[in-house]
Amino acid sequence: MDSGLIHVPYMRPGRTAKQTFDWALQVAIEADRAGFTEMMVAEHPELVIGAAALQTERIKFAPMAHLLPYHNPASLAIQTGWLSQILEGRYFLGIGAGAYPSDGILRGLTDLSENHLMVREAMEIMERVWKREPFHFEGQFFKGGYPEEQPHDPSSGDEQHLLADYSPWGGKMDVAVTGLSHNSPSMKFAGERGYIPVSVFSGSSVLKTHWDTYEAAALANGHAADRSRYHVSQDVFVADTDAEAKKRSMEGPMGYAWEHYLLPVFKRFNQLEGFLADAGGAHESEVDLEWIAEHIWIVGSPETVIKKLERLFEITGGWGTLQVQTHDYLDDPQPWFESMHLIANEVAPKLQIPGAAPTPASTSRV
Amino acid sequence: MDSGLIHVPYMRPGRTAKQTFDWALQVAIEADRAGFTEMMVAEHPELVIGAAALQTERIKFAPMAHLLPYHNPASLAIQTGWLSQILEGRYFLGIGAGAYPSDGILRGLTDLSENHLMVREAMEIMERVWKREPFHFEGQFFKGGYPEEQPHDPSSGDEQHLLADYSPWGGKMDVAVTGLSHNSPSMKFAGERGYIPVSVFSGSSVLKTHWDTYEAAALANGHAADRSRYHVSQDVFVADTDAEAKKRSMEGPMGYAWEHYLLPVFKRFNQLEGFLADAGGAHESEVDLEWIAEHIWIVGSPETVIKKLERLFEITGGWGTLQVQTHDYLDDPQPWFESMHLIANEVAPKLQIPGAAPTPASTSRV
Repeated sequence: MDSGLIHVPYMRPGRTAKQTFDWALQVAIEADRAGFTEMMVAEHPELVIGAAALQTERIKFAPMAHLLPYHNPASLAIQTGWLSQILEGRYFLGIGAGAYPSDGILRGLTDLSENHLMVREAMEIMERVWKREPFHFEGQFFKGGYPEEQPHDPSSGDEQHLLADYSPWGGKMDVAVTGLSHNSPSMKFAGERGYIPVSVFSGSSVLKTHWDTYEAAALANGHAADRSRYHVSQDVFVADTDAEAKKRSMEGPMGYAWEHYLLPVFKRFNQLEGFLADAGGAHESEVDLEWIAEHIWIVGSPETVIKKLERLFEITGGWGTLQVQTHDYLDDPQPWFESMHLIANEVAPKLQIPGAAPTPASTSRV
Repeated sequence: MDSGLIHVPYMRPGRTAKQTFDWALQVAIEADRAGFTEMMVAEHPELVIGAAALQTERIKFAPMAHLLPYHNPASLAIQTGWLSQILEGRYFLGIGAGAYPSDGILRGLTDLSENHLMVREAMEIMERVWKREPFHFEGQFFKGGYPEEQPHDPSSGDEQHLLADYSPWGGKMDVAVTGLSHNSPSMKFAGERGYIPVSVFSGSSVLKTHWDTYEAAALANGHAADRSRYHVSQDVFVADTDAEAKKRSMEGPMGYAWEHYLLPVFKRFNQLEGFLADAGGAHESEVDLEWIAEHIWIVGSPETVIKKLERLFEITGGWGTLQVQTHDYLDDPQPWFESMHLIANEVAPKLQIPGAAPTPASTSRV
């Protein structure tokens, strides 16, 4: 299994923009050192990834996600293509339709029901801009195009403005899509296009519907459904012992974020159901931090965490990359960084997708 | 006079995206060390500025420019407001309408005649987003809005999603506009709004029309026309002696860029006229690199460069910030960095706007 991060970030209220940005960069640099294979960045990804680009060597970055209805498609194609080039391929693009009403209202949209159509139209323009062949397109929501090549006489000795090459490194942009809900329509979309599927873990039964939805859509559209490309995000904390891991997570910023922010959000949007089912049909009133640490997080020594993940792999079929949710350990990063090193070096290499066949040659793995 | 940079960048053909990005960052970090007051970034400014933010301490950054017709206004307001916060005020925003046909074609626009209207509409949305008061706007080109504040009970103990504060540092975004042509309409726009005027120097007579246009529009709209806010960009190179400065500029990347790229562009777009007039009505056929070094660039020892600038200040009335155009000295940065240190420390502090009155209290200086 590969090890990734997903950096939302769940910052403690009162953090300044500078602190928030600083923490994102510290995490990126340390993840690269620890051997994480990738980092997804949720907020202002272009700024965080640009800032981390020259301070990292191996790790791949992805925005997760650029919400395509809220950008000029050609401008976003140029920016993301350029970042892919700066990172010399250590980049892929997470896209989304946008689900928060306030995000839509900011862009003058009070009805988000057409956002998924906007995503398809925006992607069409972006892919054509990256292709660098002349076109002009006026869709229902967006316009885009690519100019005819200017005639240029290289013998003239001048080097006037030629259109810069904003196509992604290697000519191809890997695209990823995140699914959250039961039978997620995003998973269907990812399958149809052969995009990389990313699941937010909210219980094993929901996860199984994600993969089934993805696999069916992929196969129906002539794409391989390769579990090694599957990414699943979770809250994970590792220390030398189970007791130490529990203490550092529950009494630290991870516990704070869950108690004050994530648990209320999960309750409001009924996201606990899958976890309650996994725990044998527990009731919401039982859910406190102790319950969360036991039934939602994957917390413990490397051995314990490997065992818990192996059990989940057996139930769900497994995945290629674990996407660890980051938390705000800015005031005392050491416990978090130690956990990251243990995850990348002691946990991830020990996990294998059950019965995994070699990756088919027709798919590229991120 | 303050010392700024304008980083286009004029890279030698064949540079990779990574090299181009690396050089932008090197220049930003060295400019901060040298004591430059600001740096304008033309290409992918959000990426360069984000990357330089935590590696610099004093210098201000500005995109010059974000072309407003080519962005979703609310998304750009959020991104630029956030950068302003990350930089804790070391940020202002250069805006433009876009003049290159290929930039328009990429966004599906073959007619750029309405771009200036798009700029006004986009700015209206951006300013209202920064204000953080509820609105809904549907214009001719763009939509935008701001949501009603969500009711929140602080006694509940949870800290659910409140809309992040993307307003600029200090609540106000300083905006700058660049003018190039005779009686530039951009200068008129800058004056009307009280924005910071930035001129690309193309001869003293053109520059005088810029200031006159700006001043008239500013005064007619109740804004002070303060020369200390005026920025003028030029090609400047300083070394210990005149001979050394000429050698390092003419035989270096600055000479290469002018010979192979800028001179052909200037010829094609008739941008030499102002310089030819300043040289007593010279003819275009006389223009070679030697002529450029003498009549277009400001090159020499600190004493020579001060004299040349003082002469220009007398003719034109002067300006508050010299915006030095950067060049691609990536292969051997030392001559360029030495020039930067001499400009910031030996040249800029010696220049005074002729007869400058104290800055009026009603205007904020960038």
